[in-house]
Amino acid sequence: MGNSFGTLFRISTWGESHGGGIGVVIDGCPPRLPLSVEEIQFELDRRRPGQSEITTPRKESDTAEMVSGIYEGQTTGTPIGIYVPNGDHRPSAYAEMKDKFRPSHADFTYQTKFGIRNHEGGGRSSARETIGRVAAGAIAKKILKLAGDIEVRAYITRVHDIEMPALDHFPSLEEVEASPVRCPHPATAELMVERIKAMRNEGDSVGGVIECRVRNLPVGLGVPVFDRLEADMAKAMLSIPATKGFEIGSGFDGSRMQGSEHNDIFINKDGKVGTATNRSGGVQGGISNGEELVFRIAFKPTATLIQKQATVDKDGKETELMGRGRHDPCVVPRAVPIVESMAALVLVDHWMRHKAQCQSFDFESK
Amino acid sequence: MGNSFGTLFRISTWGESHGGGIGVVIDGCPPRLPLSVEEIQFELDRRRPGQSEITTPRKESDTAEMVSGIYEGQTTGTPIGIYVPNGDHRPSAYAEMKDKFRPSHADFTYQTKFGIRNHEGGGRSSARETIGRVAAGAIAKKILKLAGDIEVRAYITRVHDIEMPALDHFPSLEEVEASPVRCPHPATAELMVERIKAMRNEGDSVGGVIECRVRNLPVGLGVPVFDRLEADMAKAMLSIPATKGFEIGSGFDGSRMQGSEHNDIFINKDGKVGTATNRSGGVQGGISNGEELVFRIAFKPTATLIQKQATVDKDGKETELMGRGRHDPCVVPRAVPIVESMAALVLVDHWMRHKAQCQSFDFESK
Amino acid sequence: MGNSFGTLFRISTWGESHGGGIGVVIDGCPPRLPLSVEEIQFELDRRRPGQSEITTPRKESDTAEMVSGIYEGQTTGTPIGIYVPNGDHRPSAYAEMKDKFRPSHADFTYQTKFGIRNHEGGGRSSARETIGRVAAGAIAKKILKLAGDIEVRAYITRVHDIEMPALDHFPSLEEVEASPVRCPHPATAELMVERIKAMRNEGDSVGGVIECRVRNLPVGLGVPVFDRLEADMAKAMLSIPATKGFEIGSGFDGSRMQGSEHNDIFINKDGKVGTATNRSGGVQGGISNGEELVFRIAFKPTATLIQKQATVDKDGKETELMGRGRHDPCVVPRAVPIVESMAALVLVDHWMRHKAQCQSFDFESK
Amino acid sequence: MGNSFGTLFRISTWGESHGGGIGVVIDGCPPRLPLSVEEIQFELDRRRPGQSEITTPRKESDTAEMVSGIYEGQTTGTPIGIYVPNGDHRPSAYAEMKDKFRPSHADFTYQTKFGIRNHEGGGRSSARETIGRVAAGAIAKKILKLAGDIEVRAYITRVHDIEMPALDHFPSLEEVEASPVRCPHPATAELMVERIKAMRNEGDSVGGVIECRVRNLPVGLGVPVFDRLEADMAKAMLSIPATKGFEIGSGFDGSRMQGSEHNDIFINKDGKVGTATNRSGGVQGGISNGEELVFRIAFKPTATLIQKQATVDKDGKETELMGRGRHDPCVVPRAVPIVESMAALVLVDHWMRHKAQCQSFDFESK
Repeated sequence: MGNSFGTLFRISTWGESHGGGIGVVIDGCPPRLPLSVEEIQFELDRRRPGQSEITTPRKESDTAEMVSGIYEGQTTGTPIGIYVPNGDHRPSAYAEMKDKFRPSHADFTYQTKFGIRNHEGGGRSSARETIGRVAAGAIAKKILKLAGDIEVRAYITRVHDIEMPALDHFPSLEEVEASPVRCPHPATAELMVERIKAMRNEGDSVGGVIECRVRNLPVGLGVPVFDRLEADMAKAMLSIPATKGFEIGSGFDGSRMQGSEHNDIFINKDGKVGTATNRSGGVQGGISNGEELVFRIAFKPTATLIQKQATVDKDGKETELMGRGRHDPCVVPRAVPIVESMAALVLVDHWMRHKAQCQSFDFESK
Repeated sequence: MGNSFGTLFRISTWGESHGGGIGVVIDGCPPRLPLSVEEIQFELDRRRPGQSEITTPRKESDTAEMVSGIYEGQTTGTPIGIYVPNGDHRPSAYAEMKDKFRPSHADFTYQTKFGIRNHEGGGRSSARETIGRVAAGAIAKKILKLAGDIEVRAYITRVHDIEMPALDHFPSLEEVEASPVRCPHPATAELMVERIKAMRNEGDSVGGVIECRVRNLPVGLGVPVFDRLEADMAKAMLSIPATKGFEIGSGFDGSRMQGSEHNDIFINKDGKVGTATNRSGGVQGGISNGEELVFRIAFKPTATLIQKQATVDKDGKETELMGRGRHDPCVVPRAVPIVESMAALVLVDHWMRHKAQCQSFDFESK
Repeated sequence: MGNSFGTLFRISTWGESHGGGIGVVIDGCPPRLPLSVEEIQFELDRRRPGQSEITTPRKESDTAEMVSGIYEGQTTGTPIGIYVPNGDHRPSAYAEMKDKFRPSHADFTYQTKFGIRNHEGGGRSSARETIGRVAAGAIAKKILKLAGDIEVRAYITRVHDIEMPALDHFPSLEEVEASPVRCPHPATAELMVERIKAMRNEGDSVGGVIECRVRNLPVGLGVPVFDRLEADMAKAMLSIPATKGFEIGSGFDGSRMQGSEHNDIFINKDGKVGTATNRSGGVQGGISNGEELVFRIAFKPTATLIQKQATVDKDGKETELMGRGRHDPCVVPRAVPIVESMAALVLVDHWMRHKAQCQSFDFESK
Repeated sequence: MGNSFGTLFRISTWGESHGGGIGVVIDGCPPRLPLSVEEIQFELDRRRPGQSEITTPRKESDTAEMVSGIYEGQTTGTPIGIYVPNGDHRPSAYAEMKDKFRPSHADFTYQTKFGIRNHEGGGRSSARETIGRVAAGAIAKKILKLAGDIEVRAYITRVHDIEMPALDHFPSLEEVEASPVRCPHPATAELMVERIKAMRNEGDSVGGVIECRVRNLPVGLGVPVFDRLEADMAKAMLSIPATKGFEIGSGFDGSRMQGSEHNDIFINKDGKVGTATNRSGGVQGGISNGEELVFRIAFKPTATLIQKQATVDKDGKETELMGRGRHDPCVVPRAVPIVESMAALVLVDHWMRHKAQCQSFDFESK
């Protein structure tokens, strides 16, 4: 374990940056879901490098093959295998990394934990691993949409210190995709693109913040006490490379408020119980309350720099490492579909768990 | 599931605020660990209400009984059952809560998810549930200390908007426990105590931030890609009632930095590989790197107020609810041992997982 | 893990023969199930020793307390804690067992695996541990009955070499309970009782076979490929102390047949697909097919004898051990409610899993 | 879940008989295990059809590709992906199966459970799925051999009613592989081959019994109470297609003995504690005791016949089905490597679990 996620809708990813390929197995997918490989490819294309002028110029086609679990355009309820062969193999570009540890990368910890590592392109610690998550997430998003009209939308609210104003509506996918930086506020998006280009020119990098919102979620998702919805969501988000923080609803700012300001008063919304404000972020007691789910994730600046950095080698000797070649000055835009995917995986899993425990049996009518 | 946590060192908690009692079963504890019930009681006493002038005046003795898994002062490797009977039963105090939903509590979501709820004292959503975690955490902390001299220390860095200055050393337990608010900076602690008392007088409440640090951790804890150490830690922390956020190392602030500022340069520290700074927070690529583990958790202000609040009842009718009786204006000081416990549980579990996969077999010598 | 069973309807047992008590936590029970402690006690009374002249004369009252998870006579969906305090503590009776290993018991393996053991009454390896299973099984059986009129019936078909003729109907609980040996064929039951009494007089013991049948099971329970219904059932049964074998449907005899004799021809039974014979035992491809589930379990003779036996002590020195005191010459009758309980646990769990995956979503109508 | 097996050494299989291919992901494999694809291919070649005159003449090359988790000839500790593309696609051969349910196959239950099925070659219920198990089992067997000189050997003891005499030694792989039927007693093997050929000529089939023995196992594998070694082994074996029964040690015959005959007396064997007999089959109290592990599995006759059989179609209408084409009159010989693989997977997993819990920490020396 460690490479699997979920309980009832469970994915297992495999594969390294270089070598055969990257893949995912999805176990527990409901049967008879209409599904085409194009739907998966659509999300993979959002994730892959080389999409725009602000991402790494690496060309990876990342073409998905569905090798099991589908029959005549529908899922069969058996494991769905998805395979994305690797291409663009340039091991020589990584020769220096074999013996030197890149700062703030996983080189040192992998080497020490396992006593061996595939250093080419970061091996298993490469963000290419998230291909499997995005492929599985495409399926999870389709289930949410088809079965409950539930939409998951992530977008960038901050790059470096450039922050967009508060959003007064649930943004459409088109609004998000309108700019290469995936910020739905056009004026801010433009500034962000400039900043990222500037960083690329300096061989430097920046991080940022992604916000994710989910609407039309039913009440009842999440299982106290350890598998609270926000707990599983926090784990999902912190499992994404380069993340440093997670907050839901009012988050860290909420800890600066008084209870009388912070509490979400219940009101009657057209015959349904709702809340006047949403500092809870859509979850109370670990369970979705029917309001919009709202959370944010902090991403650190990319560790790879096109600069000379001090470091040590495998023998502990101090040395220097010169980053070269292709580099992604800000990975946050490409992380947007990864955040959506992980969120959708958590939600489908918890929806199935909720139905299993609370909606399977009707004892009263007996 | 949902009420269990961990894989190899696995706890399952049970019990409601009122009724028989609260308990925990610990499965997978290593055998031959010297253990006394007093060690568990010590931590429970740190958690229970009524310890000081700033917590709820509720008197709960919370006396632990170890009902299995121990023989002649040592663990046997079989499940450790710990049972804390409930006392202080005052159901009449909760009559109003039967039909009205307390704002920002779990009343509405539990009722809607399960179609039934034990409303007395919050039932399962009561913070009394954390008794089981703290009892199990006492055992986990003992294992860390005894087997690796590993120390887990949590303390408050902020209450409401009162923040202590950055700490230049790993604080001792005595420093933390010196003030009832568990802030190791005495001058700040005093201000925090005043603020909490002021809130109590107004029937209002405040939240805050807890920081947790762990020292002497070996390199290698954490399993990529989903069970990264910080991912499991984030889940552990967000499973604690009233939490709204988690960040590790540089956290949200780190997302405002450039890569050239943020990267932790590797250096040789007395023959060992270390880092010059610790923005990574002790984890790289999801695996502990031997530096101090450092993370922070945001707590919202207590939802229970001694004020009149608008709300709705079970039929969706708008009404008012008057909080009365005993109330805890700031739960954060009592959450300190809970944070330590959850952290210790994650670390023991990952240590065992690391040893199982990476240190069990020596193929080379064959 | 190791002391938990099930995925969605999950039980964790704890406790030793001597010491505080025995208990179980049930996590994932559907809410709003009407449940009284008497229903649990009824099954515990079937399991406990001292019920009849052919079991051990040990008097254990085994009184269950439900300490959580129930509110006003219904389950709440939160963990159900059940606690059975131990009584009848006679450590002196076990002094010899402290240093000598009883043949075909767990003394040697526990001591070697854990480096420590509670030798009193067998500690955790005592059959008292099954109290928790039977308590949980009572709840599982109630769910099956209430939600689907599904009945689980176990009974003895053989003791030593005394075998009852094939049964031509699904026996009632009354038929099974009519004799202390729980064989629904009265003439055979009488012979079995005589044999067991004879063994007791010799200080010897015998084993036997239990058959279990389940009727009214829906089609669809069981998840290929590893969690086939018969695979999980086999695990459940082999986890019961003293079991040596499991077979389903035609079992070992089926391996002596030709395919043309063995195949179960499909027929139309009153508009439903059924099979003319049931050599499959109610499962095909790992999934229940709507026919009666039929399986059998082999139990070895009780290892405890009131005879002198050769053995070794903790230092490996050869010695002798004299069994004394109270002894159960045939545990198989008391294992009948344990078999039913484990079967019911597997079935409820798989029913919930089936509903979660295959009956939660209706994509076609969208 | 359902398609994964194991806890620490965990495999997930995917793939159908027809379509892209068959594969397995192995998560948790210890790092630095020397491993070549040839070692995996060796076991796959033992499993595949067309090896000899008594198996199906289907030619499947079953060529394995290792697509991740290996670097310079050693495992890296990250997931090992193995992929075996399908070939020999003849969907027309299966046209009749689309609407008619083959007797004693999984057609009806899959169709009813999932509401859809890939009928070509049995889809997911095809024995081709076991390719993934055998590939993973090859790795598990290598770990056992390299780390502990532990050997797992399965062989046929009975085909139909032809049974070999009791074996007085642990047979070598050569002895087992000497005959196409994998019975290490040459005279019996010859009779078995004749019987299978006779069945093939009649278009009929037979089953049989496989015995599996493991030597050099350390004391301590297995976790009471649910994850006993024999319980997990029973699940592993009953998860293999066509199995109907499992027994360990004395098995069903043991239930005919008296305790005084059945008990395994402890003796001192060259300074180690051992038993004079092995009716326990190498497990006591759910834990390996250092003696040989011995268990047996019953296989039913192959359900596919080259005969006309009565059945029903998808609408429940009674009809007939004529088996045609290629058919395997006895699958038991090809199941031998599958049994070994599943056994090895259970053992590696439990060895890692044992080391994690019982051998990770040394509290005494502190």
